[in-house]
Amino acid sequence: MDVVDLTGIRRTVDACLEDFLRRKLSAAADHPQPSEAFDAPEALHRFLFAGGKRLRPLLCVVGWHAATSERIHPGVYQAAAALEMFHAFALVHDDVMDRSDTRRGQPTVHRELADRLGAGLDRGEAEHLGLSTAILVGDLALCWSDELLHTAHLPARRLLAVLPVVDVMRDEVMYGQYLDVVSAGKPTGDLATPLEVIRYKTAKYTVERPLHTGAVLAGADSAVLDACTDFAMPLGEAFQLRDDLLGVFGDPARTGKSRLDDLREGKHTVLLALAFRRAGPGQRETLDTLVGDPGLTEDDAARVREVLTATGARDTVEQMIRTRHEHARRALDDAPFRADAVSALRRISDSAEARTS
Amino acid sequence: MDVVDLTGIRRTVDACLEDFLRRKLSAAADHPQPSEAFDAPEALHRFLFAGGKRLRPLLCVVGWHAATSERIHPGVYQAAAALEMFHAFALVHDDVMDRSDTRRGQPTVHRELADRLGAGLDRGEAEHLGLSTAILVGDLALCWSDELLHTAHLPARRLLAVLPVVDVMRDEVMYGQYLDVVSAGKPTGDLATPLEVIRYKTAKYTVERPLHTGAVLAGADSAVLDACTDFAMPLGEAFQLRDDLLGVFGDPARTGKSRLDDLREGKHTVLLALAFRRAGPGQRETLDTLVGDPGLTEDDAARVREVLTATGARDTVEQMIRTRHEHARRALDDAPFRADAVSALRRISDSAEARTS
Repeated sequence: MDVVDLTGIRRTVDACLEDFLRRKLSAAADHPQPSEAFDAPEALHRFLFAGGKRLRPLLCVVGWHAATSERIHPGVYQAAAALEMFHAFALVHDDVMDRSDTRRGQPTVHRELADRLGAGLDRGEAEHLGLSTAILVGDLALCWSDELLHTAHLPARRLLAVLPVVDVMRDEVMYGQYLDVVSAGKPTGDLATPLEVIRYKTAKYTVERPLHTGAVLAGADSAVLDACTDFAMPLGEAFQLRDDLLGVFGDPARTGKSRLDDLREGKHTVLLALAFRRAGPGQRETLDTLVGDPGLTEDDAARVREVLTATGARDTVEQMIRTRHEHARRALDDAPFRADAVSALRRISDSAEARTS
Repeated sequence: MDVVDLTGIRRTVDACLEDFLRRKLSAAADHPQPSEAFDAPEALHRFLFAGGKRLRPLLCVVGWHAATSERIHPGVYQAAAALEMFHAFALVHDDVMDRSDTRRGQPTVHRELADRLGAGLDRGEAEHLGLSTAILVGDLALCWSDELLHTAHLPARRLLAVLPVVDVMRDEVMYGQYLDVVSAGKPTGDLATPLEVIRYKTAKYTVERPLHTGAVLAGADSAVLDACTDFAMPLGEAFQLRDDLLGVFGDPARTGKSRLDDLREGKHTVLLALAFRRAGPGQRETLDTLVGDPGLTEDDAARVREVLTATGARDTVEQMIRTRHEHARRALDDAPFRADAVSALRRISDSAEARTS
């Protein structure tokens, strides 16, 4: 029997999240205030269970199995759930910063809360209330990711060993996000910035540190941790490059996200940087005029897509993705991981390569 | 010699914060990106050292001394600094939610970042960039408060014992803030909500949990923890009631904050709830028209102040403050604390009672 059952891991992690939020809900109901006044646990529940690949929790649990053949400590699933809760924080705040309207095929948290809490207010006030409560829902998710980890009943020395991994992961993703935010709106041909952003905001955050979290909980040595990095960085970069393509060329019915947001926001992606570098004068004008325009229409987006295709930027990104998947596969061939974990990582990597959402 | 030297504690805590942020700055400088792209450590440094009473760190250190005559573990100062870093998070996000322009006599973080990063953008875009980066600076402060605590070199069992205290403190302050945000804009005569908000957002967060943090680090028993609560709750409530008075009647040159913000925002305070309850028809109309109006002028505020005084709401709040200080003093008389700590808590309580900022 395969010990690394990805579907089973997802189910166990989701049960941890359910259980935790149910406890938060009943704690809120104990307050004398009307419970609808504090609907943050419900808002997070709706958000977490509207979708999500649970990629970070999966990698965390696989990280454990990569490092040891010891029977898995049940607390590892809750530590994995903590990563998903942290991710909910990151997405809720991201959507505020990006002014996104939809995520996982639903209204984003700040939009939903503006509608639910803002009835009877004028539009600007309702939007500000949605923004304020979404910031708080995100803050709570961040604190609750800590609490999930602290209350996972992990052996003390293992919990203490993993705290610095979590601390560094947070610094990395926030650094990447900060760069992303300050470089948005005015994309250029500069490739260094978007490459740095995908390393910090995605590759380390989404793949490397979740693997490290599980591996450190298992007491991994530095050879295992280094091999995690060798596999994680190219896979994570490929993952984000695919995301950037899907953000412009994807099918919103599959991705659950608008394919206009990245262009409207002027997100400084590798895809756009390549197009800026290679654009002829007419193409350059199209990019300069349309990218970063908050009022960009579907027709405008079609013109930008033509430029991204005609300049070869799209093909180059596809090639970069292939190369990185190849590197990730090779890293796995050499990794000192347990065989079950290698097979699970191959499955995760293959499905990331084929994904359309 | 008095072991509880409040000025010395402030100095040591500030040195922890300085040292930590200096390390974050030099880590940022190691990135290949131009360091001005990631100015979150500087933004936090400016914010933290523009002022602040360091009340939570003081109470944390005094909490240790209340519980034990053991020589203080040096890590307690860093744990105390973690509370101040958490408070920076709370204030930065608060100011975004309240749309405040000034804090500690300086532009708030979102205003400052809008000006610094938004040069050349139109006003709406600059403001949104300020808001996004301020959210991130707050997020980082929250994560860094964790890191300060984790890296304080506390004995493992003491660190593990304090994590649940910190988790519950965070839940409490966020719950209070959530209620505060959803009840703003439409104050009424309801007293239960503002009383619940001050218990959670101020009394527990500002006084009780910081004392508990220090006391738990010292291995306090439940008698000591309960006595902390008995002292903390009335003092903390008095503190917030004073804050609400200063927010409307205070001298901005001393408080560093506008005295129009609370009225413009329509903050649902005990002061306003009392006035709503007691207002005659003409006074009621003044309150209904002016409180919650984002365009409220200094003249409008003067009219509201007249109503707050004429209805006796202001006097009642002053009386509530006196009663609570009296309760806090009596709680100290009975507390099983070390004498040095009692004397320090009396000093803190007296200066809170007399404060004008």
